Amino acid sequence: MFDDTSSTSPATDVSDAPAGFAKEQLKAFVERIERLEEEKKALTDDIKDVFSEAEANGFDKKALREILKIRKEDEEKRKELDAIVEMYARALGTIL
Amino acid sequence: MFDDTSSTSPATDVSDAPAGFAKEQLKAFVERIERLEEEKKALTDDIKDVFSEAEANGFDKKALREILKIRKEDEEKRKELDAIVEMYARALGTIL
Amino acid sequence: MFDDTSSTSPATDVSDAPAGFAKEQLKAFVERIERLEEEKKALTDDIKDVFSEAEANGFDKKALREILKIRKEDEEKRKELDAIVEMYARALGTIL
Amino acid sequence: MFDDTSSTSPATDVSDAPAGFAKEQLKAFVERIERLEEEKKALTDDIKDVFSEAEANGFDKKALREILKIRKEDEEKRKELDAIVEMYARALGTIL
Repeated sequence: MFDDTSSTSPATDVSDAPAGFAKEQLKAFVERIERLEEEKKALTDDIKDVFSEAEANGFDKKALREILKIRKEDEEKRKELDAIVEMYARALGTIL
Repeated sequence: MFDDTSSTSPATDVSDAPAGFAKEQLKAFVERIERLEEEKKALTDDIKDVFSEAEANGFDKKALREILKIRKEDEEKRKELDAIVEMYARALGTIL
Repeated sequence: MFDDTSSTSPATDVSDAPAGFAKEQLKAFVERIERLEEEKKALTDDIKDVFSEAEANGFDKKALREILKIRKEDEEKRKELDAIVEMYARALGTIL
Repeated sequence: MFDDTSSTSPATDVSDAPAGFAKEQLKAFVERIERLEEEKKALTDDIKDVFSEAEANGFDKKALREILKIRKEDEEKRKELDAIVEMYARALGTIL
């Protein structure tokens, strides 16, 4: 993988000139990550667009986020947590 | 868009039973967002995999992240910032 | 404020040597921020300690965080949001 | 610690009415955390104020943050990282 015979890994092989360094490999990793990050950015924008579209149709963005979060949660665990929170709220006199 | 003739938007139309509510529209928005979020999660995992692969090949994950960040930055702005940081470091006796 | 008569502000006065630069002022700002950040770090640790103490006494950390969050929220707004979330949950068949 | 003789911990003792629950203890933990969080919020605001004051005096907020970050880092580790980043930049033809 390395042009020279030094045993050190490319990443920490500071002394050696770049020539002896796995340039193509690094380039491939960097470009793969950049492509994936671009795709991810596009999806993030798409999600924002759907939220805006929903809002334009009269839906509440905050409530939408809340329901999406609830739908991801384990129902039993959430019920357990809600029960404890209710108990704490009663003990503290905090209105839920 | 709504079954009943109430003028209120679906989102804040609390009094009205769900039946008068744009269920299908809500369902479509929620499912679209969930699909996009799943795709985004998959990409996040892919990016993590590429970083792990790079590390397994001897590359430094922290340095990779740093170079990816630098490649996204506007070169002129970064040089300007670096010059000011160097000036501050000199003034404070902080070694860069 | 500056030793020399240059009109540029100290921050972007790159050409001029540090000597002409408001060192003491910079030093004061940096040290003030560092002191405040240290105090903030100590408070963050204290908060963590109280959570650990509560957990050691049988309290549920997640429920504690939830109740602390609820107590910070505006009650009316939260009730409004909860009502919309319930309506969306009914429409989607999601069990709360 | 608990009024009743149930062996379960207060936090997960859902069935039992709040009366048997360590209310005062919960209240003390919640109020301690709220006080600490208030102090922390005040410090966060103070830090923001110092940054604004520095900016009003011509200092660059981004450069200030950068120098504060550098001053927190372990110098040797940072130099090591910088050297690897430089090597990667040279290999990729990325200008630092």
